[in-house]
Amino acid sequence: MAEKYQELTAHLREIHNVNQAAQVLGWDQQTQMPPGGAPARAAQLGTLARLAHEMLVSDTTARRLDDAAREVGTADFNSDEASMVRVVQQDYDNAVKIPSSFVAEWAQVTTLAHEVWAHARANDDFRAFQPSLERIMNLAIQRAEYLGYKDQPYDALLGEFERGLTTAEVKRIFDEHKPELVALIAAIRQQSDKVSDAVLHQVFDLEQQRQFALAVVKGFGYDFNRGRQDVAVHPFATSFSRGDVRITTRFMNDFLNPALFGMMHEAGHAMYEQGIGESLDGTPLGGGTSLSVHESQSRMWENVVGRSKPFWNWALPKLQAAFPAQLGNVDLDTFYKAINRVAPSFIRVEADEATYNLHIMLRFELETELLAGKLKVADLPEEWNDRFEALFGIAPPNDAQGVLQDIHWSSGLIGYFPAYALGNLLSAQYYNRAVGDNPGIPQDIGNGKFDTLLSWLNQNIHQHGRKFTADELTRRITGEPIQSRDYLKYLQQKYSEIYGV
Amino acid sequence: MAEKYQELTAHLREIHNVNQAAQVLGWDQQTQMPPGGAPARAAQLGTLARLAHEMLVSDTTARRLDDAAREVGTADFNSDEASMVRVVQQDYDNAVKIPSSFVAEWAQVTTLAHEVWAHARANDDFRAFQPSLERIMNLAIQRAEYLGYKDQPYDALLGEFERGLTTAEVKRIFDEHKPELVALIAAIRQQSDKVSDAVLHQVFDLEQQRQFALAVVKGFGYDFNRGRQDVAVHPFATSFSRGDVRITTRFMNDFLNPALFGMMHEAGHAMYEQGIGESLDGTPLGGGTSLSVHESQSRMWENVVGRSKPFWNWALPKLQAAFPAQLGNVDLDTFYKAINRVAPSFIRVEADEATYNLHIMLRFELETELLAGKLKVADLPEEWNDRFEALFGIAPPNDAQGVLQDIHWSSGLIGYFPAYALGNLLSAQYYNRAVGDNPGIPQDIGNGKFDTLLSWLNQNIHQHGRKFTADELTRRITGEPIQSRDYLKYLQQKYSEIYGV
Repeated sequence: MAEKYQELTAHLREIHNVNQAAQVLGWDQQTQMPPGGAPARAAQLGTLARLAHEMLVSDTTARRLDDAAREVGTADFNSDEASMVRVVQQDYDNAVKIPSSFVAEWAQVTTLAHEVWAHARANDDFRAFQPSLERIMNLAIQRAEYLGYKDQPYDALLGEFERGLTTAEVKRIFDEHKPELVALIAAIRQQSDKVSDAVLHQVFDLEQQRQFALAVVKGFGYDFNRGRQDVAVHPFATSFSRGDVRITTRFMNDFLNPALFGMMHEAGHAMYEQGIGESLDGTPLGGGTSLSVHESQSRMWENVVGRSKPFWNWALPKLQAAFPAQLGNVDLDTFYKAINRVAPSFIRVEADEATYNLHIMLRFELETELLAGKLKVADLPEEWNDRFEALFGIAPPNDAQGVLQDIHWSSGLIGYFPAYALGNLLSAQYYNRAVGDNPGIPQDIGNGKFDTLLSWLNQNIHQHGRKFTADELTRRITGEPIQSRDYLKYLQQKYSEIYGV
Repeated sequence: MAEKYQELTAHLREIHNVNQAAQVLGWDQQTQMPPGGAPARAAQLGTLARLAHEMLVSDTTARRLDDAAREVGTADFNSDEASMVRVVQQDYDNAVKIPSSFVAEWAQVTTLAHEVWAHARANDDFRAFQPSLERIMNLAIQRAEYLGYKDQPYDALLGEFERGLTTAEVKRIFDEHKPELVALIAAIRQQSDKVSDAVLHQVFDLEQQRQFALAVVKGFGYDFNRGRQDVAVHPFATSFSRGDVRITTRFMNDFLNPALFGMMHEAGHAMYEQGIGESLDGTPLGGGTSLSVHESQSRMWENVVGRSKPFWNWALPKLQAAFPAQLGNVDLDTFYKAINRVAPSFIRVEADEATYNLHIMLRFELETELLAGKLKVADLPEEWNDRFEALFGIAPPNDAQGVLQDIHWSSGLIGYFPAYALGNLLSAQYYNRAVGDNPGIPQDIGNGKFDTLLSWLNQNIHQHGRKFTADELTRRITGEPIQSRDYLKYLQQKYSEIYGV
């Protein structure tokens, strides 16, 4: 029974094993590897990537997909079998469109460009990066041509990160809430003296920070029998199987936020991967479905839970016990306001919840215009600065804090940014649905009980892995497509209390 | 120029990258992986092993080897080109003799047997392990038949770890020094009250132990820009490239030896791998040539250097500064004798320099008789205990401290043990040659200057990677084959001073 499906998944598991091995090498590279290991590591990762690609585009995949498709027939859309055939057929169709020589060129150019970018950012020298970025943009256009698209090249790239999502849809969602965000921020700006985050900027012992943040994410439900936490310059979460999902953290000794909220954020990603259905583990469906849904999880635990008043009503006394000298005299209201302070800033990854999506909208505008040929790479710094000032009311002092700040373009990640903003929207949308199903969730959080929420997420989101697209999943859970209404309402409620706007 | 050779090495580098990726996953498994990661890790390692084997036995390898062999022609035996073709042809010839189905069965049986063995040892229950070991011995005989041999099946298995070495040669070397070892140990036994190692059995802070041992191996020349040290239950060294060679350590808080001499031992392995010639890095010749030569390096740094009087003349004051309460009043003579105490014991890995090779000879005898069908697995415990008592004068109290103590057989490592004893012999043989070339080495060691020795090892051993067999290398360096004379003389000199024998 299901013999052809077994043959397909046996083959897919081999491919997945190679990809997961590469993930292990990547984690090691960013957390453990001595400096001398870099050149050989690049070669090892290159070989694994090439092998996995070859295995995916092989005749074996095509044949076994066909055989399994016939066998699976009209099985339920939601079943493992139908989902596997449907999703992997898409993966295969995309992979075969890209010639191997292009894959190799893409890898080589982006590897080299990464070094150039890092140097350019350190020297605040956009012109040094410009030729690399021009080459990457040309390759990105070429890539889009290989993949094919209906309306515009950007659709193809976006679709690699968010299956089925179109540029027009992203634009509609962004246009829908951009004016309200701008208005909200302007209103808050008038009241900026109401909130100070000075209490967060004190000296905090790193090991104490670590112990507290670990206790928090253990409490959330991140399972350390199937995970671990390490230090990394650029924090991330990574999964080698549902039994081994790791997070990394950046610590600052004079600012509490990076480690504390960063750990919550990465644990949100990790709990998603730990919650994948067992039957999908080790297969191409054994992972989060898309970046936007992944970000909905990380941002929910970091912000909707981790920056909420009920949570800190429970957690603040514990944090005060860890740092009595620094926080012993801080009241809940002051602390709650401090962690929710809104202020326009130049760096996306440091942005608050109100301004974050505007950072994304700027990048989305620029990316789509670059891909469509309406904007030249050479003009990027000026365009960045002008539009940034129009949006945020402040002008970047230099390109390092402007157009050069993000790693993404140098790595060839064009079409990746929108998912960050969509993740914010989805975090509110999913959370509201969870509370609709379990009205006791906010109170549970106030009592340090997080399994009501986590179980709901496991049941409704995590277990499905990559079976559904973000859109399919969102409609399935909330009965409607992704929208900005819930997120805006969440922000307005929070800031009306904090800033009186 | 050398176009075919480049094509060959490009292909071999891809295979090597897969093998090195597997090494990274193995290191992670033993030092970092959370418990939940085990099942998926086994699957990932299985896929990588299968891919590397497939790539090695492919027509591509055969064709490129042929092409390169024609191009290389009569190049110097010592050249990279001639060595690559010669050694990889042997690897290929061996690999194609073993059917893929057998490789898979071997992997499966030994993976399962490992669990059974661990359980059996914990419960001191040989009968629980017996069926697994019988199956492994049958597979080992089958493996030997596939590989082929001149005299006896054991030759084939031995040759997998030591290219070209025969059972008869090992027997000759062992027979040559066994009586003298037995006589030496008997003489020492009469004087056993002359030495106590009580000073080593005190409470030593783990972090202090770690810092001291790290300083020692840094002093030896282990380069931490191309390495790192972690904790593992069963210590090992592993290499992912000459730029990334890692060691692991086991710490005991009430015994100084495991971490201190263990770290020197693993650093000896690591410095070998760090010293491989750059042109061989990333190829199948980019590693130590064999286990015996590898052990010659680890044992040289651990024992010939690390248990020598000149070394401790320099190092003891530093160790005393690290542990003033425990060692402040210990004089050099007492400490030197303590770390060189000889006493028959049941466990191989805890054996002193005099008794170590006897442990190996016992295993070699039993292995060869098992492979030749002269001994039954069922009779192993009795045979082990009887022969152990005859050799050492003490009888193992149980099988856990007897026949069940080693991991090797459960992992299918039959024919692996002799290299440990040969490594001891080679450590003295190579060291004598090094001192012959540089008579100042002992004095340098007494001044904490180790680069005279390390440079000699780099030049004469390390840089050659796998170009030469252990025999070729030993003749090249010392002008004669491996022999026991130097090691016996080394032991007799040391113990005549310590025990007056």
